[in-house]
Amino acid sequence: MVSLTKRVLFEIIPNGPNETTITLSSTTNKGHYVSLRPFVNGEGKEFPFEWAFGGTSDTLEVRKIDERSNGLDFNFKFDTNVKLEIPETHRGVIKTVFKTWDAGLVEETGSVFPFGPDGAEVKFRELWQPIDPTRLEFVELSHGNDVDPNATSIALHTDNSEYEGLVVIVGNWVQGILFKKGENTLKGVNLVRSQIDANKSVKDLFKFGPDAAKFPTELLLKEGSKTTSNGVEWSVIESNL
Amino acid sequence: MVSLTKRVLFEIIPNGPNETTITLSSTTNKGHYVSLRPFVNGEGKEFPFEWAFGGTSDTLEVRKIDERSNGLDFNFKFDTNVKLEIPETHRGVIKTVFKTWDAGLVEETGSVFPFGPDGAEVKFRELWQPIDPTRLEFVELSHGNDVDPNATSIALHTDNSEYEGLVVIVGNWVQGILFKKGENTLKGVNLVRSQIDANKSVKDLFKFGPDAAKFPTELLLKEGSKTTSNGVEWSVIESNL
Repeated sequence: MVSLTKRVLFEIIPNGPNETTITLSSTTNKGHYVSLRPFVNGEGKEFPFEWAFGGTSDTLEVRKIDERSNGLDFNFKFDTNVKLEIPETHRGVIKTVFKTWDAGLVEETGSVFPFGPDGAEVKFRELWQPIDPTRLEFVELSHGNDVDPNATSIALHTDNSEYEGLVVIVGNWVQGILFKKGENTLKGVNLVRSQIDANKSVKDLFKFGPDAAKFPTELLLKEGSKTTSNGVEWSVIESNL
Repeated sequence: MVSLTKRVLFEIIPNGPNETTITLSSTTNKGHYVSLRPFVNGEGKEFPFEWAFGGTSDTLEVRKIDERSNGLDFNFKFDTNVKLEIPETHRGVIKTVFKTWDAGLVEETGSVFPFGPDGAEVKFRELWQPIDPTRLEFVELSHGNDVDPNATSIALHTDNSEYEGLVVIVGNWVQGILFKKGENTLKGVNLVRSQIDANKSVKDLFKFGPDAAKFPTELLLKEGSKTTSNGVEWSVIESNL
């Protein structure tokens, strides 16, 4: 089952919550995921994102805790904090718990260690609203399980000597990350969020980075196929088309 | 401007948040308001609501604090806690602050005094997502100001020897409260939430209470007109039709 969730709040406990981004997390049927966190008021910022990360399903471990709760351990393949070597940010596995409330919202809690494993634990809370990935507006689902089981679920991956990247399509929403290897500055970070409309035309909501033109533009492809965009070849590692 | 907001969370600070209801607060152009808070899992409960309240605009005072924040002081005309004489619940004015976040969500904070004015202050937080009142699904607005300025805004009021009640219509959403005077049990409490579809037919999402059939069924009326439902006459105190 695909999942598209919109973040409602971010909170460093006990500082109180806020939400300064339009954060969407996409997860495909097979568990490939991308989360992009652009600031609402990002104009003028060199990097107008709070954070972005993603990974193939092998970088995410899920443990069922009870009927409402799952433990999710992330060990991101793509992480802008790591890529940009931003100090005082977490490295390695992040252990989280996702708990579904009666109202359908999903509360995520966990801890990060921005000063390393021997440093102080920083507890955080995020809250997620499941939205319908087959719609172009933010239409709330009353429960994440209500998602259309036939919603499009595609993942494209690239990993060559120069670039590595992941693009996921859930329903009508595209999110992607492309890193230039060995380039630990903003010159190495590319991010994209797009929508695919009823006519299958792709509209970019944002496209960031000097190599953003290398994101694939042919998206609705079958598993095992390949597509090349401005010299970067992408492999379709998952598709339900 | 009308407003329809869906609650995202309720939190007694510092106990942590949750959301067990589908709470909607409706406010008309002129500031008449109704907030109904049915539990998602209310089956089997004698009163399947966390709370319900409402009032005409004269029971709500708004103070601008800054560009993002307003102070709202509520002195509800209709309050199920007061009506049902539920112990350890607040009486009188509740002072709140509503602050709009960058992402468009509205954080409400305030204090209640469930043990009276000399008792301990209980701080709370609620978070509200503005939704499009002209849609039948929960379609998020990126900002409360994005609401259609021509959305339907109607309030019907009744106050006779036996009953007092308020019904507000914002966009396609109807919410109402009807109390039987002198009856401080569930026999005196009636609540309704309905939707009006494109054919102007009314579909009840829930209708609670022994006198719920006295809620008006003719709704799309002009200001100054009257409508009678099973013996109770309602006056249209506001209408932009």
